Amino acid sequence: MFKKVLVANRGEIAVQIIRALHDMDIVAVAVYSSADQDSLFVSLADEAVKIGGPQPSESYLNMAEIISAANLTGCEAIHPGYGFLSENAEFAALCEECHINFIGPDSDIITLMGDKSNARIAMKKAGVPVIPGSDGVVNDVATAKQIADEIGYPVLLKSAAGGGGKGIREVDEPDELESAFLSTQQEARISYDDDDIYVEKLLTHTKHIEMQVIADNFGDVVYLPERDCSLQRNHQKVIEESPCTLISQEEREMLGGIVTKATKSLKYTNTGTFEFLMDQDHNFYFMEMNTRLQVEHTVTEEVTGLELIKAMILVANGDRLPFAQADATVKGYAIECRLNAENPYQGFAPQPGKIDHLYLPVGTMGVRFDSGIIQGSFISPFYDSMIAKVIVHLDNREIAVKKMKRVLSELEIGGVTTNQDFLAEIIHSDGFAGGKFDTNFIEDEILGNRRVTNGAK
Amino acid sequence: MFKKVLVANRGEIAVQIIRALHDMDIVAVAVYSSADQDSLFVSLADEAVKIGGPQPSESYLNMAEIISAANLTGCEAIHPGYGFLSENAEFAALCEECHINFIGPDSDIITLMGDKSNARIAMKKAGVPVIPGSDGVVNDVATAKQIADEIGYPVLLKSAAGGGGKGIREVDEPDELESAFLSTQQEARISYDDDDIYVEKLLTHTKHIEMQVIADNFGDVVYLPERDCSLQRNHQKVIEESPCTLISQEEREMLGGIVTKATKSLKYTNTGTFEFLMDQDHNFYFMEMNTRLQVEHTVTEEVTGLELIKAMILVANGDRLPFAQADATVKGYAIECRLNAENPYQGFAPQPGKIDHLYLPVGTMGVRFDSGIIQGSFISPFYDSMIAKVIVHLDNREIAVKKMKRVLSELEIGGVTTNQDFLAEIIHSDGFAGGKFDTNFIEDEILGNRRVTNGAK
Repeated sequence: MFKKVLVANRGEIAVQIIRALHDMDIVAVAVYSSADQDSLFVSLADEAVKIGGPQPSESYLNMAEIISAANLTGCEAIHPGYGFLSENAEFAALCEECHINFIGPDSDIITLMGDKSNARIAMKKAGVPVIPGSDGVVNDVATAKQIADEIGYPVLLKSAAGGGGKGIREVDEPDELESAFLSTQQEARISYDDDDIYVEKLLTHTKHIEMQVIADNFGDVVYLPERDCSLQRNHQKVIEESPCTLISQEEREMLGGIVTKATKSLKYTNTGTFEFLMDQDHNFYFMEMNTRLQVEHTVTEEVTGLELIKAMILVANGDRLPFAQADATVKGYAIECRLNAENPYQGFAPQPGKIDHLYLPVGTMGVRFDSGIIQGSFISPFYDSMIAKVIVHLDNREIAVKKMKRVLSELEIGGVTTNQDFLAEIIHSDGFAGGKFDTNFIEDEILGNRRVTNGAK
Repeated sequence: MFKKVLVANRGEIAVQIIRALHDMDIVAVAVYSSADQDSLFVSLADEAVKIGGPQPSESYLNMAEIISAANLTGCEAIHPGYGFLSENAEFAALCEECHINFIGPDSDIITLMGDKSNARIAMKKAGVPVIPGSDGVVNDVATAKQIADEIGYPVLLKSAAGGGGKGIREVDEPDELESAFLSTQQEARISYDDDDIYVEKLLTHTKHIEMQVIADNFGDVVYLPERDCSLQRNHQKVIEESPCTLISQEEREMLGGIVTKATKSLKYTNTGTFEFLMDQDHNFYFMEMNTRLQVEHTVTEEVTGLELIKAMILVANGDRLPFAQADATVKGYAIECRLNAENPYQGFAPQPGKIDHLYLPVGTMGVRFDSGIIQGSFISPFYDSMIAKVIVHLDNREIAVKKMKRVLSELEIGGVTTNQDFLAEIIHSDGFAGGKFDTNFIEDEILGNRRVTNGAK
């Protein structure tokens, strides 16, 4: 087993990875930016290396510094967490070259899935249903028009290199297509230095359903019960649940069969998540694959009882999967709220500052807080605004929702504005209680807007 | 359903009861002493009534004040928690007279079980195996000698009204019996105002195994998987687990059958716990019944997934049990450490003071902290030294123990001395790892003493 592992991340996920390493008797090395020197994850690590300034490019995206820190401290492996370098094929390849184990899939599969258009082609080939659209990149307006006519309007124009809401445009009728095509290309060029565009049918009032898989080097694959991540704002997930109230065990097994087959045919190893849209007739359409651990893996841990970060480390080490498909069953109901230091009522503007008061209502069954903060922590303006995940796991959805309501009402965070009230507003809404919300729910019902949804991350 | 319930307790258990009430949309009223006015449980309650001075007799044992607070605030029921008035038959009877629902069994059963000698007789009659000894109270030295000769030395002389280690003496040979009898009588008279004494065979190297039951008013009874509470110091539990590593499913069902039958024959309602000693041949001997919720009910909640405080409130309200025997199965492994503000290396002397720093390593799967403290809380010298319960619940004992080790090493409490290192010492010991420790383990292996054990609470 690895003796020493570097954690190439910060905040709550760095904390949880360090804890998983400690639970496995592995020495944990943190790397940190100058903005994070007083952070919880730095103090929990056995060793910590300062790798640069507060800007991500100077530190958490600084491949050379991270590799050098791993060599300096004698680490055999790197866990990239989520965000930052976790889906960066160049970094994974660099690790491979330097004989450092990248805890994640191989670099070539990250490359394949990183190109959303190629991923779509690969999935179609592997028997995964995809959203109707172009088979690959579309180079000119005329071809885009022809495809849009075939699949019917409205359509989406999407940057192949994109993600997170940039380089994506809704086109409602033929007249709008040309100017939308050119401006999407331009935005993609600026944002991703890559102006490849593809066309997809716009699906509305869908559920965002995703299924995580984990695979070892012996060809064994386990799929995990689906997550319903339909509650999103600005293409970012806000509240996630597992299982999805609308999905039957038969549908779960059907979808599980599809993703397992695809995982095997891709020779995919370690963990990854297939993201789908589900329409009102329960048709599933592949959207993209995340070749990394996701924020919301915690609801899956809770609902299955399986510790996924540990499993990632084990399979990266060359061990067999520590559980079988039969262990990955649904046990109760789990809900996660992402607690962000932001102002939801002012366009979700980030709210950096010092947490001068913190009361976490831990205690009683089924309540979990995964966070990287303590009282006195400073929320930096340089990074993502998520400061904690509030997770409940109980016997059924009704009591889980009740408990989440109480936990959100007890929680106290002073010094920074958070989305606590916004989360409570969603949890208390009738739409949430019924469980029938779709990806438009927050925009339509909570914020009262109307937005595009396919591009949701 | 009750609209408003008074919580006649303080500290962590008051916090958990208030949360359970809130999860059930019931208004929670706290009562508090002048020492507790800034406590977490007071701030969490919807209403709070100051009932007296810091001495328990002035407040948490002050029946008239508590009943008056319930009437004043219009509460329909009182949850007594553990300790204080929870096993006080007079208080339960007073509630009954005042038409306030006492959330617990009837006063007559509390009276019966409160007399350890009568409880023994009742249990024997109900088919529960008891420790060899006198059938009831022994009034003179000659009778005590005769019984001791019959069952064999060493024996224990125990106060019928006793509990918690007072009014109990080990007698190793006939010559010692007379003086021991007289001094036990005297101590019992002083401590409990009752000099009734009974005789029991002293069993050593036993496991303390207990089984909780819960019963509704319709005659339905559910027994819950056993807890191993063998790790004790000065007759007080330190670490509890569920299930017990040595007990098979067949033995669990056999013991469950015995306690279920006894619960039914006693017409017992609400929750209670049968405490047994198990010898090395797996013979079970009834010790006593606790007619209340116990501190360690949390390990049972975790291992079964059933919320027991909620269930108590439901059955007190006249509802049917919210779960069936088939739901009360063992799911994984749970361990609880009692975190006390005390100095284990100076005779467990209580250590009152202000908690000026508190870091609870919440986060990751299967970690729960039930406590009544926050940073800034003052640990009062007037009450029990327990400040928190640290609970882990995972798939099996090995990973649960690993996690507990890590959690105890991460935990930080500043300002007061606690038993944190002592708990870690036990958890790291070989005897604990093997799971074969008995009730003498802490005294023999950790503290290096040799003490009596039957009287363990």
